Amino acid sequence: MDTGRCGLWCLVHLQRSLLYSGTLYSLYDYRLFWLFEMEKNDCNPDGWLTANFEPEAVVVGGGDTPNHPLMRKWLEHHPRLVCCDGTANQWQDSWQEPWQIVGDGDSIAPAVHEKYKDIITIYPEQETNDQTKAIHFIHEKAPDIRRIAIIGSTGKREDHTLGNISLLLEYQKLGLEVRMYTNHGVFIPCCDTTTLHCPKDTAVSIFNFTATHLSSEKLAYPIYDFTNWWQGTLNQTLADDFTIHAQGCYLVYLAYSNQKERE
Amino acid sequence: MDTGRCGLWCLVHLQRSLLYSGTLYSLYDYRLFWLFEMEKNDCNPDGWLTANFEPEAVVVGGGDTPNHPLMRKWLEHHPRLVCCDGTANQWQDSWQEPWQIVGDGDSIAPAVHEKYKDIITIYPEQETNDQTKAIHFIHEKAPDIRRIAIIGSTGKREDHTLGNISLLLEYQKLGLEVRMYTNHGVFIPCCDTTTLHCPKDTAVSIFNFTATHLSSEKLAYPIYDFTNWWQGTLNQTLADDFTIHAQGCYLVYLAYSNQKERE
Repeated sequence: MDTGRCGLWCLVHLQRSLLYSGTLYSLYDYRLFWLFEMEKNDCNPDGWLTANFEPEAVVVGGGDTPNHPLMRKWLEHHPRLVCCDGTANQWQDSWQEPWQIVGDGDSIAPAVHEKYKDIITIYPEQETNDQTKAIHFIHEKAPDIRRIAIIGSTGKREDHTLGNISLLLEYQKLGLEVRMYTNHGVFIPCCDTTTLHCPKDTAVSIFNFTATHLSSEKLAYPIYDFTNWWQGTLNQTLADDFTIHAQGCYLVYLAYSNQKERE
Repeated sequence: MDTGRCGLWCLVHLQRSLLYSGTLYSLYDYRLFWLFEMEKNDCNPDGWLTANFEPEAVVVGGGDTPNHPLMRKWLEHHPRLVCCDGTANQWQDSWQEPWQIVGDGDSIAPAVHEKYKDIITIYPEQETNDQTKAIHFIHEKAPDIRRIAIIGSTGKREDHTLGNISLLLEYQKLGLEVRMYTNHGVFIPCCDTTTLHCPKDTAVSIFNFTATHLSSEKLAYPIYDFTNWWQGTLNQTLADDFTIHAQGCYLVYLAYSNQKERE
């Protein structure tokens, strides 16, 4: 087991070294590593959290420190961690080294800048925030990546949190599959009719952006064309999957299985 | 000084006793007590936070524990604290006793229920959340109260947070002046043209609900008819007041003076 882990570790590092040379983007695939790490299933007791969505890159923001086991596992092992600007200052020894650091550069500590200068990309313009700069970096420089998990982007200032959440819909327009995992649940941007899988009795909230003709199957409370955020909150699944019919875009929030009630 | 404080304390308790008898709602006024407590101004370094808005009741939710000095002062001294359901279970000895406990009753611990049974009001219906039940209680039972601060209503599950924030606009429709104070800033529901006062360089975000013809004075970035949450974030005041022109309703978020940047 130790030998296998070591061999795999070397393989991953070899892959990363080759990746840095810029020659193997298209061949780079960490799925073997991922399956190895996930085989015990100890970090993803809610297996549905990543069903059909194993992220190819993980963007780490400067909000609340991610504390769900799944996110901690990503921080410790995922080979493509993209760090939003000054978030790199708080990097912990137990975490995987960042793959890239992206932002406006205004909050990266000098020592961090020196240590990671080869993997830092600065977009100085102030029209977009650091989370969006990280997404744009991936979209432009690593177009093979489509599935991106965003963590550490909620908590602290609530206006940042609201902005970050709503930007998921913009990233989706770029053709990316993005999900925002928080310490309490996951936001999934959706357009038109969507079927999602999660255990019966999962707490679900739906935030409407541009959708009309909203209706649902297998949710406890009927949904409609919500015009205020609170109207779509505190619903519940009646089966192991549910469907939302709509024309247009909306956000689905699924609470983790131990987060059904207000703590 | 001690005698004065003692006398004032007795007066406040006498007032509260009379209030419980239900005969003196209209005469109840804690302003003297409030001014006494506030005279040192040690809990409200950002005096603008309560300029023209000294709350007549404070609703305490079960989200993140309020840690701003102003909110801690309310928890320790405000005579009209309304506790949302199971939040009462976490009541701390240093806090003022609740004035009322309101909710669906499903999370109040038996010991708490026994201790506070005279001030508990249960609305068992599940169409509204506990925060809204607390607001409706105040609106119906204490119609003299118009200015309400809501604290402890953000943090933890993000769908609860989004719902709670958006409900401010519903409470405003009841004729109430409500503000939600978080550990990082304050949400103020507004309709039509509004002028607000806060120091130059305060971080401001605006979340549009039904407003059209949005424009601003004395903000760093021009505002427009936002259709997504992120569009109105990360603005800044250019003077000690600013004005938003609009037709319809929107939410203004002002960050506290030490919270301009993402921590």
